[in-house]
Amino acid sequence: MNQLDLEKIVQSVVSDMKSERKQKCVVDTSKMNLALARRIVRAVEKRAAEIGVNAVVAVADAGGNPVAIECMDDSYLASYDVALQKSYTVVALKMSTIELKKLSQPGGSLYGIQFTNNGRIVIFGGGEPLKVGDKVIGGLGVSGGSEEQDTALAEYGREFFRELTLKEAN
Amino acid sequence: MNQLDLEKIVQSVVSDMKSERKQKCVVDTSKMNLALARRIVRAVEKRAAEIGVNAVVAVADAGGNPVAIECMDDSYLASYDVALQKSYTVVALKMSTIELKKLSQPGGSLYGIQFTNNGRIVIFGGGEPLKVGDKVIGGLGVSGGSEEQDTALAEYGREFFRELTLKEAN
Amino acid sequence: MNQLDLEKIVQSVVSDMKSERKQKCVVDTSKMNLALARRIVRAVEKRAAEIGVNAVVAVADAGGNPVAIECMDDSYLASYDVALQKSYTVVALKMSTIELKKLSQPGGSLYGIQFTNNGRIVIFGGGEPLKVGDKVIGGLGVSGGSEEQDTALAEYGREFFRELTLKEAN
Amino acid sequence: MNQLDLEKIVQSVVSDMKSERKQKCVVDTSKMNLALARRIVRAVEKRAAEIGVNAVVAVADAGGNPVAIECMDDSYLASYDVALQKSYTVVALKMSTIELKKLSQPGGSLYGIQFTNNGRIVIFGGGEPLKVGDKVIGGLGVSGGSEEQDTALAEYGREFFRELTLKEAN
Repeated sequence: MNQLDLEKIVQSVVSDMKSERKQKCVVDTSKMNLALARRIVRAVEKRAAEIGVNAVVAVADAGGNPVAIECMDDSYLASYDVALQKSYTVVALKMSTIELKKLSQPGGSLYGIQFTNNGRIVIFGGGEPLKVGDKVIGGLGVSGGSEEQDTALAEYGREFFRELTLKEAN
Repeated sequence: MNQLDLEKIVQSVVSDMKSERKQKCVVDTSKMNLALARRIVRAVEKRAAEIGVNAVVAVADAGGNPVAIECMDDSYLASYDVALQKSYTVVALKMSTIELKKLSQPGGSLYGIQFTNNGRIVIFGGGEPLKVGDKVIGGLGVSGGSEEQDTALAEYGREFFRELTLKEAN
Repeated sequence: MNQLDLEKIVQSVVSDMKSERKQKCVVDTSKMNLALARRIVRAVEKRAAEIGVNAVVAVADAGGNPVAIECMDDSYLASYDVALQKSYTVVALKMSTIELKKLSQPGGSLYGIQFTNNGRIVIFGGGEPLKVGDKVIGGLGVSGGSEEQDTALAEYGREFFRELTLKEAN
Repeated sequence: MNQLDLEKIVQSVVSDMKSERKQKCVVDTSKMNLALARRIVRAVEKRAAEIGVNAVVAVADAGGNPVAIECMDDSYLASYDVALQKSYTVVALKMSTIELKKLSQPGGSLYGIQFTNNGRIVIFGGGEPLKVGDKVIGGLGVSGGSEEQDTALAEYGREFFRELTLKEAN
C-alpha cells in the first residue's frame, strides 16, 4: 500500500463520514420507516448477542403492519409468530405486553382477549410500543429468551428508539 | 338575511320537523335496523367523548350479524375485533359480557367457552344485549376504555335503547 | 306555533347552520378519520338507495384498518365481509378491485393472490382507494348490488371524497 | 484534521478492511443464516430502488421458515404476505414461482395447489429457490412491482447469492 493508495482511502473515508453523518440526520423518526426499524432491530440483536439470547426481532408501523423482522441464527421457529404478534399487540393496545399480562390473567379486566383477536394478541413480556411523545408510531416485538430476557430486550429497544428520537429532535 | 329568507327557512324547518317526527315515528324498534343501530352508536360515542374514552362501538342484529360499527379517532386497533365480538357474544348467549365474565373463569360453569366458539366469545365487560321485553333483538359492543368504562358505556347504550323503545311504543 | 316559537326556531336554525359550517371546515381530509369516513359512508348509502341497492359500505384507514362500516337494511349477510375486505384490498394494493380483477384472472400476473393473503384480497368490483394527490389515505368497499352497481357506487364514493378534499383544500 | 487524525483514520480503515475481509470469509453459505439472508435482502432492495420499485423482500431457510423480511417504504401492505409466501413456496416446491405459474393454471398439472396448502403457495413470479449445487438451502420472495419486475428482482437476488457462494467456495 503506497502513498497514493493511502490518500485515496483517506479521501474515501472522509467522504463516507460526511455522507453518513448527513444520512443519519435525515432518518425520519416522526413515523416508522425501514431505516428506523432496521436500526432498532440491529440494536436489539446486538444486545441479545451480548446476553446470549438468539432472538427474533420485529418492528411494526402505526397501523400494526410489519416493517422489518429478523431471526437470529438458532432462534426458536415459534419465535417468529410470537415476535411478529407482539409488535402488533403493542400497537393495537398501546401498552407493553408485560403490562397486558397482568390485565389478561384469569379474573383480570382483559382476561380472554388472547382468544378473541384472531390469535394476534400476545400476553407475555417482550413487546413495547414505540412512542414519540404520547403518540404510538410503531411497535417492537422480541422473542427468544426467557420472559425476563425478552422483556429486558424490548425495553432496551424502546429506550434505544427514545434516545434516537431525542437526538434527531435536537 | 331578509324577510323572505327567514320565511323560507321557517317553512323548511317546520317541514323538516314534521318529516322528522314522522321519520321518528317509523323507526322500527321491534327489530334491529340501521337507523336504530346508528342512533345507539352515536349516543354511546357522545357519552364516551364526555368521559374521555376513544371507543369502538358495534351493534349486531338478532342473528348476531353486524349492522353498524364505528371507530372513534385514536381508538385501539384491537378494539375493533373486541367490540364486534362483544356485540355477537351478547346475542349468542343472551347475557351481558360482564355476567359471562363470572361464569367463564377457571372453575366456572362456562369456563372453556372462550376456546370453543372460533374466538367469537368475549368474556369481559362492555357488551349488553338489546331487548324488547324479553326478546333479544340485537347486541351492543363497546371497547376502548377500562373494563369499568366499557361496561358503563354499554349499559348506557342499553338504557338509551330501552328508553327509545318505550317512547316509540307510546 | 306562535311568533315566539318561530323566533326561537329561527334562532336555533341559524345557530345550527353556523355551527355546521364551522364543523365542516374543520373536517380533516389529510388522513382518514371517523367524521370523514361517516360522510363517505352516508353519501354512498344515499346513492345506493336512489338506485335501489341495499349495500354494506366500509371505510378503512391508511393502515388497512376499519374506521366505519354500515349495513343497510336487507343487505346480504355476506356483504359485510366482502365490503370490509374490499376496503382493505384497495389500501393493501393501492388499486381498485375492478383493476385487480383483470390482473388476478387465470393466466394474469396476480392470479392466485386471492388465495395467499388470508382471504383478505377481493378480486371483483366495488372497492376504490381514497387518495389525496398520489397518497392513499384510506379505502372504500361497497357490496350489495350487481358488480356493475357496486363498482359504480364505489366510484361515486371516491369522487365524493375527491370533491370533499378539493373543497377543504380551498 | 491534522496529521495525527489522518494516521488514526488510516489505521482504523486498514484494520476495518482486514476485519471485514475476515468477516466476509466466515459468512457460511452452506446453509441459510441471518448474515447471508441480510446481504441478499439488501442487494435486492438496492436493485429495486434503482428500478423504482418499493419492494418487500423475504428470505426463508431450508425448512421454509422465515429468516429476514424487510418492507421498503411505501411498499404495498399486501406484499408482506405475498413475499413471505413466495419465499416459502420456492423451498416447498423447489422451483421458482414463475415456473409454478405455468403448472398451476386451470388445466395444468398442479392446478389446485393454490387451494390445498393453507394459502401458502404463490403462483406468480417473484420467488426463486436459493441453491448450493443441487441443494435448495433457502428461498427468496420479492413483491412490490409488476410481475416482470418482481421476477427480475428475484432472479437478480438468486444470481447475487450464486456469485456469493462461488466466491466463498474459492
